[in-house]
Amino acid sequence: MIYFHNDYAEGCHESILKRLSQTNLEQTSGYGTDHYCTAAADRIRKLCEDSSLSVHFLVGGTQTNMTVIAAALRSHQGVVCAGTGHIHVHETGAIEATGHKVLALPSEDGKITARQVQELVEEHRASEAMEHTVQPKMVYISNPTELGTIYSHKELEAISVCCRSNGLYLFLDGARLGYGLEAADNDLTLPDLARLCDVFYIGGTKQGALFGEAVVISNPALAEDFRYMIKQRGGMLAKGRLLGLQFDTLLQDNLYFQLAQQANEKADQIRNVLSELGYPLYVPGSTNQIFVIIPDRVLDEIAKNFTFSLECRVDEEHRAVRFCTSWATKQENVDALCEALRKVVKEQKDS
Amino acid sequence: MIYFHNDYAEGCHESILKRLSQTNLEQTSGYGTDHYCTAAADRIRKLCEDSSLSVHFLVGGTQTNMTVIAAALRSHQGVVCAGTGHIHVHETGAIEATGHKVLALPSEDGKITARQVQELVEEHRASEAMEHTVQPKMVYISNPTELGTIYSHKELEAISVCCRSNGLYLFLDGARLGYGLEAADNDLTLPDLARLCDVFYIGGTKQGALFGEAVVISNPALAEDFRYMIKQRGGMLAKGRLLGLQFDTLLQDNLYFQLAQQANEKADQIRNVLSELGYPLYVPGSTNQIFVIIPDRVLDEIAKNFTFSLECRVDEEHRAVRFCTSWATKQENVDALCEALRKVVKEQKDS
Amino acid sequence: MIYFHNDYAEGCHESILKRLSQTNLEQTSGYGTDHYCTAAADRIRKLCEDSSLSVHFLVGGTQTNMTVIAAALRSHQGVVCAGTGHIHVHETGAIEATGHKVLALPSEDGKITARQVQELVEEHRASEAMEHTVQPKMVYISNPTELGTIYSHKELEAISVCCRSNGLYLFLDGARLGYGLEAADNDLTLPDLARLCDVFYIGGTKQGALFGEAVVISNPALAEDFRYMIKQRGGMLAKGRLLGLQFDTLLQDNLYFQLAQQANEKADQIRNVLSELGYPLYVPGSTNQIFVIIPDRVLDEIAKNFTFSLECRVDEEHRAVRFCTSWATKQENVDALCEALRKVVKEQKDS
Amino acid sequence: MIYFHNDYAEGCHESILKRLSQTNLEQTSGYGTDHYCTAAADRIRKLCEDSSLSVHFLVGGTQTNMTVIAAALRSHQGVVCAGTGHIHVHETGAIEATGHKVLALPSEDGKITARQVQELVEEHRASEAMEHTVQPKMVYISNPTELGTIYSHKELEAISVCCRSNGLYLFLDGARLGYGLEAADNDLTLPDLARLCDVFYIGGTKQGALFGEAVVISNPALAEDFRYMIKQRGGMLAKGRLLGLQFDTLLQDNLYFQLAQQANEKADQIRNVLSELGYPLYVPGSTNQIFVIIPDRVLDEIAKNFTFSLECRVDEEHRAVRFCTSWATKQENVDALCEALRKVVKEQKDS
Repeated sequence: MIYFHNDYAEGCHESILKRLSQTNLEQTSGYGTDHYCTAAADRIRKLCEDSSLSVHFLVGGTQTNMTVIAAALRSHQGVVCAGTGHIHVHETGAIEATGHKVLALPSEDGKITARQVQELVEEHRASEAMEHTVQPKMVYISNPTELGTIYSHKELEAISVCCRSNGLYLFLDGARLGYGLEAADNDLTLPDLARLCDVFYIGGTKQGALFGEAVVISNPALAEDFRYMIKQRGGMLAKGRLLGLQFDTLLQDNLYFQLAQQANEKADQIRNVLSELGYPLYVPGSTNQIFVIIPDRVLDEIAKNFTFSLECRVDEEHRAVRFCTSWATKQENVDALCEALRKVVKEQKDS
Repeated sequence: MIYFHNDYAEGCHESILKRLSQTNLEQTSGYGTDHYCTAAADRIRKLCEDSSLSVHFLVGGTQTNMTVIAAALRSHQGVVCAGTGHIHVHETGAIEATGHKVLALPSEDGKITARQVQELVEEHRASEAMEHTVQPKMVYISNPTELGTIYSHKELEAISVCCRSNGLYLFLDGARLGYGLEAADNDLTLPDLARLCDVFYIGGTKQGALFGEAVVISNPALAEDFRYMIKQRGGMLAKGRLLGLQFDTLLQDNLYFQLAQQANEKADQIRNVLSELGYPLYVPGSTNQIFVIIPDRVLDEIAKNFTFSLECRVDEEHRAVRFCTSWATKQENVDALCEALRKVVKEQKDS
Repeated sequence: MIYFHNDYAEGCHESILKRLSQTNLEQTSGYGTDHYCTAAADRIRKLCEDSSLSVHFLVGGTQTNMTVIAAALRSHQGVVCAGTGHIHVHETGAIEATGHKVLALPSEDGKITARQVQELVEEHRASEAMEHTVQPKMVYISNPTELGTIYSHKELEAISVCCRSNGLYLFLDGARLGYGLEAADNDLTLPDLARLCDVFYIGGTKQGALFGEAVVISNPALAEDFRYMIKQRGGMLAKGRLLGLQFDTLLQDNLYFQLAQQANEKADQIRNVLSELGYPLYVPGSTNQIFVIIPDRVLDEIAKNFTFSLECRVDEEHRAVRFCTSWATKQENVDALCEALRKVVKEQKDS
Repeated sequence: MIYFHNDYAEGCHESILKRLSQTNLEQTSGYGTDHYCTAAADRIRKLCEDSSLSVHFLVGGTQTNMTVIAAALRSHQGVVCAGTGHIHVHETGAIEATGHKVLALPSEDGKITARQVQELVEEHRASEAMEHTVQPKMVYISNPTELGTIYSHKELEAISVCCRSNGLYLFLDGARLGYGLEAADNDLTLPDLARLCDVFYIGGTKQGALFGEAVVISNPALAEDFRYMIKQRGGMLAKGRLLGLQFDTLLQDNLYFQLAQQANEKADQIRNVLSELGYPLYVPGSTNQIFVIIPDRVLDEIAKNFTFSLECRVDEEHRAVRFCTSWATKQENVDALCEALRKVVKEQKDS
């Protein structure tokens, strides 16, 4: 069985394991106060071209989302996101468990717009009984989104301007950030993110690390006492060095971005074959996630040797599914999938 | 200015004030352990024809909703309701502040159906990663709903059956219960509610009391330790007798229901005039709330002497607004409103 | 049976009931936006000699405590109080239910000192792993305390100075504030409280109102969006006028303070008899609560006709108990208690 | 600088790194559903001699504590522990952030007794206003405790009996469980823990793993929906295999226990030297943590080459400090510390 159903099916890039071995018995201080974390944070500040950034390392995405959001909001404030937002539908109510409402906006492609945010804020403020509704105070977006789409510089800037003029924080979930920044049609950079967002993170788990997300805070109001929040929410790793070392390794010599770019290229190969076979994308995209509509009879054949994930049923004979490449995807497996798709389609045509 | 914008603009029925005065210096024990609370609870058990019910008195609706829901759910569980549900849009995230997600279902008329609940539960259980999403565990409905509509016996029974077969609790918010039970097209009774719901409440605040909601719990699992929950959520009134006395008074000699019935009749008078003038109801209804679409130029005139509340803008020249009658609405005020409506319309036609 | 076991056994001062009747059918806007609330708030600002104060009315003490504390603290911050503090031991974990730790300090008499607070803050800051412990951010005191003692001007000022120099908020629970301010040995005034505290409240429930606590916020940081917090925590009374009217009535013509003063005098009469009989106070005091150590055999006799509350067992033959007077205590009942005490003691001596 | 200030200064046992490398590019399913987790869980069930146990793997201690406790308690219930308990003083209020009060009991040596628990429960139940206080529902103990002491079989059984007879859950934090079970004076076994506790965990982070805690649930009521809780609290590692693989490796061929036993032996060597030098233990112990009282002038010298952690100041000239050995402590470092201690003492005597 060959896995295409997510981008965390393997371990990590070999350079990380090598360095873990080399440094294994070194003694360091705990909880992220070691020199690996310092070095990785410095590296991130340099890549973002802003020496004032506050950088922290957490273990996973849900943990990061709930820690950042709980740190930012007062009790009566909520976080705005797309209806497909990870915090809204895939985190078992982790945000609500910190006491905050997720205010969902409709979205076809996983993205929301500055206009939607502006209207929500205005509607709230125009309400006869404003205090009877949750105050929107933070906007959460993912880039790439849960549907593999990306924000343009212009779109992100518009959201950022809208947030600042209304006193909202902008938080960008970058669990797959590398795949986004390396997309062919991307025009955003790390310095852009540091400038336009109040806080964002650089995902490691799905991008070549064993685990880990690097939180980058540019708004000093959010940075205050952030380490207390990490500890309180269970995210402070005793051996914090493991996180620092991984990011320090991945962000050296452009490795992080090379790995992402390779994954995107492999996704493009699959997208090309799907297009050639006439299967429409469920959502168009240019990153490592492919959302495509395929007939059941084809999928049933493919499923014998390959894994993928179900997005939704489209009609009685078609499903939208996701194929995912990653930093670890082997060319031979991409070839096998492409060949299998072509073969199944041909056989079914012939019969 | 004459108020039609809600059903809590006045104090309370005179019989309550009279009895408060008569008993004012009597000494009683606190926190709902007094004989007035006992008597009122007994009266409710009798009206519901179930001597095993657990009855508690709280001060207000939001407080009651958050107390009942927090008492019922474990941390990973959520409460299902209509998108218009009071807990979803008018309680400043009170439910989320207790750590629980509100799972909203689309609704045109403020009601949800057994089928919608069933589908939500099945979708949750069929999920590849069930534990990554909030577990639906309680259904919250209002009767009448926030849009003044009511559930039929058949509809409520279907929801109840669906909940029980799936292990969900059914909670009915009866902030305006009397208006619902006295509606011309109603076929539900208090014993029905006690039998079909796990917990519901009989609203006092909007039905002739100064304040107060009587929570009726029929599911013993929800009754356990409920007084701790009331205290913890700030709802345990030191002078609990005030609540007991009010419900004991209102539920005597059918007063509670008479008051509701009178309010519904006055609403019918207004509905008749609106119909006569050709103004369509925004949502059809038979209780004390009237949701109607009226041209701005008419509303602007009416607003000079009457208050009402804005539901939403319908188009550039029309708004949907709510007129509310109550236990305290005077016939002369209803007459004045009807006359004013007719007059404004006539004048505008003439000009 | 004559009640001395608390100060909320009766209804309210007759002038409140009278005014409720007179204004019952007046229509007002809801949720504390009516003219009674405005008038009561103005009155409080005047009494506190500070026109910039933000004043809000809530229904009960636990509700007020949890609302104020949750409004003030970020997630990693805690509230410091005496081990006997109401929020620590008598509110079913209401503060923890809002996510915050109560940091208890040892206390013999219900009071804490500026020195204790200073040491706690310094210990926290000196910690090797500061972020692994809750950050003290607010000090909660009661005046009078749960043991009936009061803070002197000098003591309160020292705590206030300590809080301000360390960036902590000072919150004073005044559920029995009138009894404190009218105590013979009190040297604090309402303007002092407004100046020294960031937020405090003037208790109504135990001081002549049916219910209600008036929150006075002098620190603008705490005032921001406070109405959202009241609504979210279930404390926003639909008929907010009930609260405004009660405080407007009580604070007129010094009534609130006269009632408190009368209760203190009656407590003094009882204290005198207890002293005459040689029963030592458990905690010395000058307000309406009397904590005294009495032999079981005497208490058992007294309990036949009078109620009081148990504080704790002192030894095998003695208990510390509380007798409470209130704004409603009748002189004849005080006389009856004094006489009974003398009589029982005499009889037991004689036998 | 040689580290003795904690037991998580190094990486992990080499066999783990080796196996991580060997299996790195294997594709597995995520979130703990892989075959490594299955194998490790089976191994634990076998070691505990109970095939019905529910086993889950989490990343760290605070995360585990808050997840277990939040999963077990209803909103009004609290968790009982020693005043020195990790959840009470070293987790930034993580438990309170889930809404629950920690009920602290006094303790000299980090342990609590069945009698203390029994008294607390009885005091709660005897209270005049039981519902005004938090209901004790779970007992949390650490073994070894934060002060390095261990529970005897008899003590643990007494607590277990007390909990069961009163309807409380017993939760044992085993962050350093191996060091406890390998202590010379220990008479508890894994099957004992599975039988006596409702839930406990086997610590990895401080015992040879890079990170990880294995939660073992014997009470089915606590096992229900536990995976939802892990996800909601941010503890569900995408690459769950990392946790399974580590525990599967450590628990093979008794490695976990051998490592612990070696650490205890090295601690004994240090304890012997301290005893020889006449320095009294702050708390007697037999595990890898040594709490000892040493003069400042000696500590100041030792601190030049060795790290240790401060427990507290004992008097003006002495501090209680902690030296920690671990699975990774080198014999040469133990020798260096012992020699340094002897040398400093001798020099100061001579001078």
